[in-house]
Amino acid sequence: MNFEDYINVYEDFPKEGISFKDIFSLTLNPEVYQKVIDRFYELAKPLDANLIVATEARGFIFGCPLAYKMGLGLVPVRKPGKLPGEIASESYDLEYGSETLEIQKAAIKPGDRVIIVDDLIATGGTLQAMIKLIENLGGEIAGILSLIELTDFHVTDELLKDYNISTLVKYNS
Amino acid sequence: MNFEDYINVYEDFPKEGISFKDIFSLTLNPEVYQKVIDRFYELAKPLDANLIVATEARGFIFGCPLAYKMGLGLVPVRKPGKLPGEIASESYDLEYGSETLEIQKAAIKPGDRVIIVDDLIATGGTLQAMIKLIENLGGEIAGILSLIELTDFHVTDELLKDYNISTLVKYNS
Repeated sequence: MNFEDYINVYEDFPKEGISFKDIFSLTLNPEVYQKVIDRFYELAKPLDANLIVATEARGFIFGCPLAYKMGLGLVPVRKPGKLPGEIASESYDLEYGSETLEIQKAAIKPGDRVIIVDDLIATGGTLQAMIKLIENLGGEIAGILSLIELTDFHVTDELLKDYNISTLVKYNS
Repeated sequence: MNFEDYINVYEDFPKEGISFKDIFSLTLNPEVYQKVIDRFYELAKPLDANLIVATEARGFIFGCPLAYKMGLGLVPVRKPGKLPGEIASESYDLEYGSETLEIQKAAIKPGDRVIIVDDLIATGGTLQAMIKLIENLGGEIAGILSLIELTDFHVTDELLKDYNISTLVKYNS
């Protein structure tokens, strides 16, 4: 099964120059959605992890079913102000301005083995912030799974030196 | 298993007077997270549905694993500007200002039988908007599932006349 066939692409959305990959044309097809999760499961099983970390909102689409199927805890990374309790935060630059992501400190304990799950890796800003949030709390990155990778940014080339990363669908841009 | 025992409550978050129910203390515990999904599965099985609709971001936490387990398509309801293609939208009033939610028109076809999944029902504004979005596209609401219900708003009392609603944990406020 070629997952790419089920991902609709919209040019110039949400703004000019962006070629938007719509994961929700894939999730509308239950057999294909299940096959993505099952493929992630096969990749995740040998990683000996005890937690899944996913970023709102689209990371939840794949991270939550995987956590359910594997019987692992699910920890969210969210935009500022949405998580209660003691928070760790990490900021990174965007083309214009910056973005901040937060995690609950109590969710990650030293020695936890974490699988990061996301829908798409592009510039890697979100991914790098997630890695820092987890590692600063003492967690180990057991692996990184993403449905889509935009290869022009060469993010995984660099990260592959230090991390176990798998992506299922690759686009040039 | 009493799911309420696994939901941490934070007073005055995100603002004074709000008693915040933190579903992520529950999802951190894999056995409890699985049991919630399995309970939803038992409630959903007889409803003869073909789609799950969930609202970002916390609705995805329960809607996506349920869609995976049942083998149903997953359709998101999102904040404005996040979904590509032809969009239907629905606005509703908040205490201050208003909120708009969007759905992709192509995702719901006349005769589709839809289960709405959410984390929490409070004033019912989000839920009513989701019902309208689905019904306006010709979908039928097969059922509504939410982990938490704040009973002081009496939303389900009213909606129960017309819809099959189940909530697993009830709080007075």
